[in-house]
Amino acid sequence: MSKRRIYLDHAAGTPVAPEVAKAMEGCIKDVFGNPSSIHREGVSAKTALKDAREKVAKVLSVKADEIVFTGSGSESINLAILGTVRASKIKNPHIITTAIEHKAVLETAHKLEKEGVSITYLPVDINGLVKVADVLRAVKPETVLVSIMYANNEIGTVEPIIKIGSILKEKFPNVYFHTDACQAGGMLPLSVERMRVDLLTLNGSKIYGPKGVGALFVRRGTKIEPIIYGGGQEHKLRAGTENVVGIVGFALALELAEKLRKKESKRLTLLRDYLIKRILTEIPDTELNGHPKERLPGNVNISFKGIPGEKLVLYLDAKGVAVGTGSACETANPKPSHVILALGKSKESALSTIRFSLGRSTTKKDLDYVMSILPGIVEKLRKAPM
Amino acid sequence: MSKRRIYLDHAAGTPVAPEVAKAMEGCIKDVFGNPSSIHREGVSAKTALKDAREKVAKVLSVKADEIVFTGSGSESINLAILGTVRASKIKNPHIITTAIEHKAVLETAHKLEKEGVSITYLPVDINGLVKVADVLRAVKPETVLVSIMYANNEIGTVEPIIKIGSILKEKFPNVYFHTDACQAGGMLPLSVERMRVDLLTLNGSKIYGPKGVGALFVRRGTKIEPIIYGGGQEHKLRAGTENVVGIVGFALALELAEKLRKKESKRLTLLRDYLIKRILTEIPDTELNGHPKERLPGNVNISFKGIPGEKLVLYLDAKGVAVGTGSACETANPKPSHVILALGKSKESALSTIRFSLGRSTTKKDLDYVMSILPGIVEKLRKAPM
Repeated sequence: MSKRRIYLDHAAGTPVAPEVAKAMEGCIKDVFGNPSSIHREGVSAKTALKDAREKVAKVLSVKADEIVFTGSGSESINLAILGTVRASKIKNPHIITTAIEHKAVLETAHKLEKEGVSITYLPVDINGLVKVADVLRAVKPETVLVSIMYANNEIGTVEPIIKIGSILKEKFPNVYFHTDACQAGGMLPLSVERMRVDLLTLNGSKIYGPKGVGALFVRRGTKIEPIIYGGGQEHKLRAGTENVVGIVGFALALELAEKLRKKESKRLTLLRDYLIKRILTEIPDTELNGHPKERLPGNVNISFKGIPGEKLVLYLDAKGVAVGTGSACETANPKPSHVILALGKSKESALSTIRFSLGRSTTKKDLDYVMSILPGIVEKLRKAPM
Repeated sequence: MSKRRIYLDHAAGTPVAPEVAKAMEGCIKDVFGNPSSIHREGVSAKTALKDAREKVAKVLSVKADEIVFTGSGSESINLAILGTVRASKIKNPHIITTAIEHKAVLETAHKLEKEGVSITYLPVDINGLVKVADVLRAVKPETVLVSIMYANNEIGTVEPIIKIGSILKEKFPNVYFHTDACQAGGMLPLSVERMRVDLLTLNGSKIYGPKGVGALFVRRGTKIEPIIYGGGQEHKLRAGTENVVGIVGFALALELAEKLRKKESKRLTLLRDYLIKRILTEIPDTELNGHPKERLPGNVNISFKGIPGEKLVLYLDAKGVAVGTGSACETANPKPSHVILALGKSKESALSTIRFSLGRSTTKKDLDYVMSILPGIVEKLRKAPM
């Protein structure tokens, strides 16, 4: 294997920022009390937890008691969806979501469907955009929740969340609005007020924080029940001793990501567009997936006609470049991406897709290196029998 | 506050073992890939996860694919209970548990009761022991699950899990058997085969590992559904990117705890009995809660007549000694412990209880220091108006 490593799979998982790693290392041995204990060790853990909660709340401009820490982005999403639907008094509840959500949303919706909940899966256009009018049209008297992702993890398309939120809430103030913002942290503004969401999911492992920590913003007054029962931790919404060290890391990571956001988004957008342009012009039979402009700063999702995405990932890996096929959560079982299919593209196109997701370490030099090897690999693979 | 700290609240949360902290620190920056990714960074994370799973499986003498990593002991318990009951095809399912379980069991049972599941809460004797005959008598054709803790977190009583398991499984092989072994790790043998359990819960923060990581042993063939849906992680039983660093720490902590178990249990048992004897003989109107012999090596639970447990905790804290009142998870809202009440003791007795839980750092000198201040504090508080 090549020694040089160029990591372009930030959407699957970011490295932990050095500042965050340092803060966590400082906590691992020293902050070991149970935050529920009243002695000094407990108070020290409780204080660390409180500070972290306030940091996160500040980034979202919300109250600290509106932040619930969880064990992952997926858990936050499950809590948002299962929690509001199960707490609802509506007899045959209805949920609106989209066809391109993360599996944590879709599988949870499928589970609820089996329990008799009806689900509307909104279509998207060829660029992956949801139409605001479609959202409104789908609302029924039984609609409990609308869950639409802020930015798609595979194709990078940024949904018109602010528009959807403001119109939805004006017409249907009682329908809860959740957004999966896992990919948005550090990339897009996280103003809960402007989006008018009631629930918002974040994930530590996508914002240069630790894996195993997520957060859910839950607007005060939201009727929601836990999915994990026990002690009254996290405002009685998530039982279990809090992962203090992870939460400290998460909060610092989010704070840092927000601080770097504008500058970094701008920088990555330029790099992104540079890579897209070079691939599309220098390699024949390639196609960009996702919206050309309304997309995550670091996301470059391309179909390479005739080449299995997995194979391309492995060839690039051998040359020192880490990229992803669609969603990392599904690479163990390569099926055509439900997201690419939802764009109206073919199964072949969906299977020949890879995702470059740029991040803090990415430089133009990295992308030039990629472009020094990628055309050759593509040509070779196209000549080889599949 | 006193400078000297004597931490005697290991049952609420253990410090992270230095070896574990070191291993985690070594991972935080370096193992950042998503275990589901197929490139080198992903494979590195996947390998770390696989090694950890094998370590845990080895301690329990089970197959690696029978280990599910979760976000806490509470989550493992919820998964065991909600998962088996919801996956059951039985129409009016029934669960058997005990009156002295951790809130993660009891609150989950209460939740299921609201959904129409019937629950038997077995009584315990004055020492906190469940009668094997009571378990068998409670089994009905609709019984899906028996969930009985291995050792009680408050009073330390060790239940006859091996006896219960062998008789239960002989008579009712189709009834699942779960044990909450959170307090047992590193203290009691964890032989899943001898206990004949189908499900067993462990918690990192009680075995000198990280907070935010639990594990659930799920015997092959057990019908169980997830409580968190999404990607197919953890054998499709727990969606969400795996907390690799935490899991690495958890596995090492469990391995280490098992290695030290026999020697440490013996050492702590002597220290425990030394402290119990001194308190009971040197301080009037004190009473031991829990079984005098069948108890966790490190557990000393005492009622001090006429003194609110909380107050005693705070006075000891000011003198440098950290102890707990009953269960840490409930100290935020001091109610009489359901465990002490279940022993048939009075509300007053329940409210005047504190728990010393000894651990790796505890020495006889520590306990002598405690006994040099405790009688005076007790005397002072008894004279003061409540």
